[in-house]
Amino acid sequence: MSAPDVSVDAPPRTHDDSPFVRACRGLPHERVPVWFMRQAGRALAEYRAIREQHTFEQVVHTPELAAEVTLQPVRRYGVDAAILFSDIVTPVQALGLGVEIRPGVGPVVEQPFRQPSDLDRLRPLEPEHDLAFVLETVDLLVRELSVPLIGFAGAPFTVASYLIEGGPSKSYSRTKALMYGDEATWHRLMERLADITLASLSAQVAHGASAVQLFDSWAGALHPDDYVTYVLPHSRRVLAELGALGVPRIHFGVATGELLGAMAAGGAADVVGIDWRVPLAEGRRRVPTGIGIQGNLEPAVCLGPWEGVERRVRDVLAAADGAVDHVFNLGHGVLPATDPAVLQRVVELVHGEGRVGDHRGTGAEPTDG
Amino acid sequence: MSAPDVSVDAPPRTHDDSPFVRACRGLPHERVPVWFMRQAGRALAEYRAIREQHTFEQVVHTPELAAEVTLQPVRRYGVDAAILFSDIVTPVQALGLGVEIRPGVGPVVEQPFRQPSDLDRLRPLEPEHDLAFVLETVDLLVRELSVPLIGFAGAPFTVASYLIEGGPSKSYSRTKALMYGDEATWHRLMERLADITLASLSAQVAHGASAVQLFDSWAGALHPDDYVTYVLPHSRRVLAELGALGVPRIHFGVATGELLGAMAAGGAADVVGIDWRVPLAEGRRRVPTGIGIQGNLEPAVCLGPWEGVERRVRDVLAAADGAVDHVFNLGHGVLPATDPAVLQRVVELVHGEGRVGDHRGTGAEPTDG
Repeated sequence: MSAPDVSVDAPPRTHDDSPFVRACRGLPHERVPVWFMRQAGRALAEYRAIREQHTFEQVVHTPELAAEVTLQPVRRYGVDAAILFSDIVTPVQALGLGVEIRPGVGPVVEQPFRQPSDLDRLRPLEPEHDLAFVLETVDLLVRELSVPLIGFAGAPFTVASYLIEGGPSKSYSRTKALMYGDEATWHRLMERLADITLASLSAQVAHGASAVQLFDSWAGALHPDDYVTYVLPHSRRVLAELGALGVPRIHFGVATGELLGAMAAGGAADVVGIDWRVPLAEGRRRVPTGIGIQGNLEPAVCLGPWEGVERRVRDVLAAADGAVDHVFNLGHGVLPATDPAVLQRVVELVHGEGRVGDHRGTGAEPTDG
Repeated sequence: MSAPDVSVDAPPRTHDDSPFVRACRGLPHERVPVWFMRQAGRALAEYRAIREQHTFEQVVHTPELAAEVTLQPVRRYGVDAAILFSDIVTPVQALGLGVEIRPGVGPVVEQPFRQPSDLDRLRPLEPEHDLAFVLETVDLLVRELSVPLIGFAGAPFTVASYLIEGGPSKSYSRTKALMYGDEATWHRLMERLADITLASLSAQVAHGASAVQLFDSWAGALHPDDYVTYVLPHSRRVLAELGALGVPRIHFGVATGELLGAMAAGGAADVVGIDWRVPLAEGRRRVPTGIGIQGNLEPAVCLGPWEGVERRVRDVLAAADGAVDHVFNLGHGVLPATDPAVLQRVVELVHGEGRVGDHRGTGAEPTDG
């Protein structure tokens, strides 16, 4: 499918001229922008207070609550962007695939995807109908937010891994067995999931999100050749078709050290997120010049003494070297045991110490991914 | 502690002149040696038959059974080495730390390590007493085996992660919180675990193991700076003190792409294992010249059609380029769903097609780790 026909220049669009959006575009801006993956959630007392009354899924499905928990970290931390509070599996759950988000476990699928006929269960997503609660959340946020809103979706591989494994996995062996064993079914599944991802993100942008992040959280479990053969074409199509909407596209996964160049998707991604395993300067060398980078403070550092946090934040800033196309973030999500006061100090430190020059970071030779 | 005073040149020593041991030493040999991590276990019907009668822990603790399941893959696959059937937590379990290996979960610790006083629970290991069943297994194997036996232990970080988290973990957040938050306790814990690891491996060698593999399975969860600061010194001591015993030392973990150079431990490791995420040629570049490499077929490839397996085996052999210091293996353990017939064909293919020249592989400039 193609991206829907929306008026991309029409309002509302959240804060297109903010440091975050400008950094994603490689344009000069006044301060190093910072936000945290999973900034909304268990580290915050105000979030836990809501969760004492409501399940995770109730929060996601109730626009007032989803908007509130999206706003909480913006108020608390002073971050430069909000990210929609949602889940990677929300769109496939909305299609009636029998997905449940089990506390302490993650997404669990009642009847996992196991044979070609399961493709019939994946009808096209109609965002205005299936994800009405998500889009209403976006509408509320666009009115409230003083910073850009980042739209959110799982990439086809990561969503497929949940559907096929039936839940979180260590080895992804069923997923990979389908990938190697029935390429035709694999690609059809990935095409449908790419359509669903694209429809979800396009609708979020149409309702005012100023950027999107495509989470291919578990792509780092793949050999680079398999990533390029079986996964990248589908993610690249999602990113490329979103290009018409004119918002920055961030592409992220963990343990992706060997995939960073490919994840630039030949320029279809504007920014590649780098996890904490790869020192940022090395990550910068692997992502092609002209593509921004996001990251990459080790999230667990924030569980330790402030002196260590401060040193490591400065290390990340030094490695970014004032390039205009760096967005400060953790290397993965906020850990639940994190003291919110530490994250607040991280934001202050990044804003106070980060210097933005007028040069882009220098990386690998561009390739077509 | 120092390595115990054993007569390293005295028999018994399993097959010191085999292709596997010679490859680990970078000496010319007749064929590319191959073995598989977790080659003993759930993929084999003859193993499952034993497990129908006995728990995992009964097998580990009964020398006749542990020896039998160690031998099964040697008979079935024709691999060039056996690896002792045991578990990463076996030594700390033997110290009475309340460790249970729960089916489908992994090691679970009744009272996790949470405070400095927990150090008192880690008394020194007396292998001849505490691990008598392991050493009796080694004794049986030395008499039976026609290929070298690889001794087995978890590295201090990986064992610590189980003790501190209380079981398997995704984020290692308690482990890292202790590491950053109480360095003195951290290093004392790591020192004791290093002593235990060293005692266990030394005893296995004294009883006839021809090589050892130190599994730092989860070290890849660490930022490279943290690995070098908090973990490597302890693993390096284990490897260095084992040096006096004269057997090759293999050092392995998953998702260690950024740690490969450091894991050579300044030459205290003879071979660095490379997981499937890093193409072998790239892994070779990161491991210093003079240190061998082991790996790295993507284990899940073996779940797919043979044509794909064959192609990927040839890719690994081509990347190794006939270097004398390459040991063929999977990039991680055999997946339970693997058809044993496929692994048997992999061994035949490696033995039939692998060519061994007289050159070592060329890698990074040696560093002192």
